[in-house]
Amino acid sequence: MKHNVKTILFGLMGLLWIMSATVAVAEDSLSSWNDGAAKKNIMAFVGKVTTQGSPEFVPPAERIATFDNDGTLWPSHPMYTQLAFALDRIKALAPKHPEWKTKQPFKAVLDNDLKALAAGGEKGMVELVMASHAGMSTAEFEAIVTDWLDKARHPRFKRRYTELAYQPMLELLTFLRASGFKTFIVSGGGVEFMRPMTEKVYGIPPEQVVGSTIQTKYEVKDGKPVLMRLPKIDFIDDKAGKPVGINKFIGRRPIAAFGNSSGDREMLEWTGAGSGSRLMMLVFHDDAEREYAYGPANGLPDTKFGTFPQSLMDEAKKKGWVVISMKNDWKTIFSNK
Amino acid sequence: MKHNVKTILFGLMGLLWIMSATVAVAEDSLSSWNDGAAKKNIMAFVGKVTTQGSPEFVPPAERIATFDNDGTLWPSHPMYTQLAFALDRIKALAPKHPEWKTKQPFKAVLDNDLKALAAGGEKGMVELVMASHAGMSTAEFEAIVTDWLDKARHPRFKRRYTELAYQPMLELLTFLRASGFKTFIVSGGGVEFMRPMTEKVYGIPPEQVVGSTIQTKYEVKDGKPVLMRLPKIDFIDDKAGKPVGINKFIGRRPIAAFGNSSGDREMLEWTGAGSGSRLMMLVFHDDAEREYAYGPANGLPDTKFGTFPQSLMDEAKKKGWVVISMKNDWKTIFSNK
Repeated sequence: MKHNVKTILFGLMGLLWIMSATVAVAEDSLSSWNDGAAKKNIMAFVGKVTTQGSPEFVPPAERIATFDNDGTLWPSHPMYTQLAFALDRIKALAPKHPEWKTKQPFKAVLDNDLKALAAGGEKGMVELVMASHAGMSTAEFEAIVTDWLDKARHPRFKRRYTELAYQPMLELLTFLRASGFKTFIVSGGGVEFMRPMTEKVYGIPPEQVVGSTIQTKYEVKDGKPVLMRLPKIDFIDDKAGKPVGINKFIGRRPIAAFGNSSGDREMLEWTGAGSGSRLMMLVFHDDAEREYAYGPANGLPDTKFGTFPQSLMDEAKKKGWVVISMKNDWKTIFSNK
Repeated sequence: MKHNVKTILFGLMGLLWIMSATVAVAEDSLSSWNDGAAKKNIMAFVGKVTTQGSPEFVPPAERIATFDNDGTLWPSHPMYTQLAFALDRIKALAPKHPEWKTKQPFKAVLDNDLKALAAGGEKGMVELVMASHAGMSTAEFEAIVTDWLDKARHPRFKRRYTELAYQPMLELLTFLRASGFKTFIVSGGGVEFMRPMTEKVYGIPPEQVVGSTIQTKYEVKDGKPVLMRLPKIDFIDDKAGKPVGINKFIGRRPIAAFGNSSGDREMLEWTGAGSGSRLMMLVFHDDAEREYAYGPANGLPDTKFGTFPQSLMDEAKKKGWVVISMKNDWKTIFSNK
């Protein structure tokens, strides 16, 4: 008897779920997208994989969508947000490190000498990240990041970085989740730099954030367990590391993947190599007026932060990956939150 | 107008959800558990954290529960299932490796010489794992594991290993999920050994399985991307590695954790160190008749597979962790699936 009640209630729930989903889709979920190829591709793909009985139907458990973060969900210019954080942290920590006044790459940061900073290359960058991201517990680091995200402002747009999420991508995330997808971030950025904000900004919980990691160590301090952040790289979730990270953390191949740079090439290749219907998209920053314009694909200026080379554009064309033009496909860029 | 329709439908869904949840709880979700301290503790904890307005209420997004696998959800005797798999694989691969006939630790496996095998220690074990778990693509490995799980039988119970999941724990997993929890496996076992079966057996999808990993490498073979499994340890998710793994993969501290051995000590400490209501439980194998009995806690025989030392029993008592007696707390051991 009890079982019957439960069965009926669940049946009704299912029915209402379908009805509300239909209503949701009937509204324009992607209202910040212009009517163009990008939007059409999204609607067609979601329609196919969610239609019961369609040959391309995908069960909800397998509807995995992965999103790069920098340059895909929020800006990566004039520099990666996490790099801006690292530079601010070096400056904040400088009083405790008088030796940094004369030691590169720290001197370059304190002098705002971007040329000397660039000359330090990747080795210098790793030193800066380690000095700013390690040596504290995970709880302390979370508090530092949360505080910085609240206080720091983007140099051009004068808003919090978390207020610069791309509105069309927020709509896309919401639309996919309403269509039964599980949305993940798969970013080259540090996982513990992103987690303090992804749930609030993107609706993506910490356990669905994949990123680069540094090693941590379990210790008991004054009877209380802590995880200490060590100055050692654990995993770089970029380029060929993205399929590795997807396999390690998610364990299921995405059916949709979204990126914006050569760091996302392998993630899109990996996604596209599965069977059945797939959607691969790249945000192309061609809007200097409202955001930034860089490539070097299609003759736009080159950049160190989110490079979109011509070879990626060519591969996209060849493989049917959809290139999103910020300028033409997006009615608005930033959310008004 | 459309918004109103949607709001009403969602409201109805919510109402039905609450009604059906109440019906679900009203039924005995833990019918294979005897009425004792273990069951009472579970019911009291879930009641507290799911009651709106209770000072110990926990929002659903934070209801993370982590489960060890070997010895907690299925048997770890007479040896870890994954070790049985490794030994079978070595035997299957032996014709291609004539040198194994005279080379340890392989010779010990082929001779069924458990004493020589034990003499090889951890180094020998790693060699066996690498020879049996690496050198193929992730897709090939998944197929090998799936095939083995279908064909192999437990030496004592003569059933598939996947048919030996503990019925009381399956009920607990279902009950927690019905109460808004997200259930994760956090095991010392290999993540890609577990993922092929966790969804079917435990209702836990691959992206909620945390375990030990070996390194993989992205390669394009004949134009098709593959992830090759390398003979290199990436991460050991055991003992002090469990909080590290939880932080890395989940990024949120569990409010409930379930284990059975010294490998789970730090996971339970880490879980218990959070604020608010917490539930930490240890399965104690004290039922030689229906399953196995080992400790060495409480004077039971010692073991290499899922050691439960007296110090763990003492810590459990001191910290209020609940010890589950298989013999007294469980009406049945195995599911009838």
